[in-house]
Amino acid sequence: MILEGVIKDAYLESIKKVRKGDKEEEVEAIKNKILSAKRIIVATNNQKKFKIIKNIMLKFVKDAEIKMTDIDTSFADLTRMPAIFKALMAVDVENGDIYIARGRLGIPGSGAMLVILDNKGRILTASLSPPSSIHKEKIEKRIEKEIIEALNRVGIK
Amino acid sequence: MILEGVIKDAYLESIKKVRKGDKEEEVEAIKNKILSAKRIIVATNNQKKFKIIKNIMLKFVKDAEIKMTDIDTSFADLTRMPAIFKALMAVDVENGDIYIARGRLGIPGSGAMLVILDNKGRILTASLSPPSSIHKEKIEKRIEKEIIEALNRVGIK
Repeated sequence: MILEGVIKDAYLESIKKVRKGDKEEEVEAIKNKILSAKRIIVATNNQKKFKIIKNIMLKFVKDAEIKMTDIDTSFADLTRMPAIFKALMAVDVENGDIYIARGRLGIPGSGAMLVILDNKGRILTASLSPPSSIHKEKIEKRIEKEIIEALNRVGIK
Repeated sequence: MILEGVIKDAYLESIKKVRKGDKEEEVEAIKNKILSAKRIIVATNNQKKFKIIKNIMLKFVKDAEIKMTDIDTSFADLTRMPAIFKALMAVDVENGDIYIARGRLGIPGSGAMLVILDNKGRILTASLSPPSSIHKEKIEKRIEKEIIEALNRVGIK
């Protein structure tokens, strides 16, 4: 079923107050949306971060074209949800089937979020990391973990 | 330093393009904001979920008054970020120092998010769970893990 139908059914359940949490077919719809992406936009202008995400994505979505944004997304850091706003900026200025962004979760000090949006800017999945001053790992290693975890949690492994 | 000052300094760094990621003093400010809370609002009308969150919070914030919201927050499920909108609904209708909500991350099937906001609705920390059809754990166990993880990642353990 296409995403719109899946979402409408869930909304109707919520309205009728019979909603019982995520269903297998909903997770399946997200999984398919990601795995069938022909064009993936990574909302970063950092080559190193782009390559890490690209390499992991290519393991699952072999034929996809994977592109980085060519505008500065750091303005998103002055919003309340930098990672999500970074991804939305990419939705607004590029054409893709899914969009991947990595940035701050909330206020300064709140750590990182990697988020995957679809072509309408809807949140498909995400993952979080603690602030770098707490995890003390290399950022490349963290981003790799984040993209793998974001995919894993909707059954892509 | 109060949160406003911390945030302004970080914003200025972003504007000057010298920002290098979260700093220890920023994480410390978030930690203090949570640990000094006198009144904590849990955005749920489910007694069971409330008790799990309350019991964990009381280990860290011993003297806090912890209250659940008395309005139905399920309307948030028809928004694009149900967990965050649930928390914001609580910010709008209750007076607290911090607000804790647990709900869906994004579209149906995208799993859960537990989020902690401050009195202005700013995101302090959060944690995620996979969709229940994937993790197959009891929801109580998951929520316990989520609140502990959300605190841990800003150094509260």
